[in-house]
Amino acid sequence: MAPAPIRILGLDPGLRRTGWGVIEAAGTRLSFVACGTVLPPEEGTLAERLAVLHRELVAVLAAFTPDEAAVEETFVNVNPASTLKLGQARGVVLLTPALAGVPVAEYAALLVKKTVVGAGRAEKAQIRMMMKVLLPQADFETDDAADALAVAVTHAQHRGAAALRASFEKRVGARVAAR
Amino acid sequence: MAPAPIRILGLDPGLRRTGWGVIEAAGTRLSFVACGTVLPPEEGTLAERLAVLHRELVAVLAAFTPDEAAVEETFVNVNPASTLKLGQARGVVLLTPALAGVPVAEYAALLVKKTVVGAGRAEKAQIRMMMKVLLPQADFETDDAADALAVAVTHAQHRGAAALRASFEKRVGARVAAR
Repeated sequence: MAPAPIRILGLDPGLRRTGWGVIEAAGTRLSFVACGTVLPPEEGTLAERLAVLHRELVAVLAAFTPDEAAVEETFVNVNPASTLKLGQARGVVLLTPALAGVPVAEYAALLVKKTVVGAGRAEKAQIRMMMKVLLPQADFETDDAADALAVAVTHAQHRGAAALRASFEKRVGARVAAR
Repeated sequence: MAPAPIRILGLDPGLRRTGWGVIEAAGTRLSFVACGTVLPPEEGTLAERLAVLHRELVAVLAAFTPDEAAVEETFVNVNPASTLKLGQARGVVLLTPALAGVPVAEYAALLVKKTVVGAGRAEKAQIRMMMKVLLPQADFETDDAADALAVAVTHAQHRGAAALRASFEKRVGARVAAR
């Protein structure tokens, strides 16, 4: 019997553009459900822009009812101001599924690239190409949506290991360093 | 006739400790309402910890129904990882009042110190001392709560100017560089 499919929402956070992608995973079989890009307005206070980001993600969660979510742990080390900005968008992107009761996992950008392309230094174009191979139905229009799908695929491949680790930690009553 | 008092919620964001402080301002008269510190659990996923921060701030907003909120624009430039962490907490701290329909202003830490102490390089101890002078009823237990009250006081003193600027911008149809 095939395992019951689970729905995964992948998220690639950013204040100007947040990519999202929903897939279904049944064992090793993956299928595309939907993807898109949230573009908060560039006008308004930061709080207002974050509120738009939150509301659009609430709508995505309501429309596609994922079982689990995964967020890319991007590390843009351009300067502290842009790191802070990214962090603010990331906070909202992590919070929103959690408030809807959806567990949120995080994956380092390096692991995402290794998982979908096989190399940690993959270019955006390679990620898009691999997403087309893995999810032929996917119609992403932006790199952000493709990245979000890549995070969802990464979660599909690693969630089993993560769940196993959590259950082990519970049994032995200790945390195993994993991040 | 004295101007109608407005209630201001000041916030000093952090993932491990977020300070909050509520004051009332009637013209130049300030009075203390309440303050405290949210301590999200150190256990759990980042998303879960941010959800606790959000829920506790929702409770503060419900209990004290502020008219306006103000958040300190801290700039801890220790390393990118801690800047990202601060950003994530900040995103939630900015979002939460906005979702409750409370406008959120931001003030640079330097301006907060200049406003309450008179010098941009003030120490934590000086801020606590000045808060005791300005708000004798205040019973803050942490530096974070004292900082949050300082942000609220800063907003009380600058909100008139900010409102004037916004109205001017509306009239002339242009943005005046202010941050």
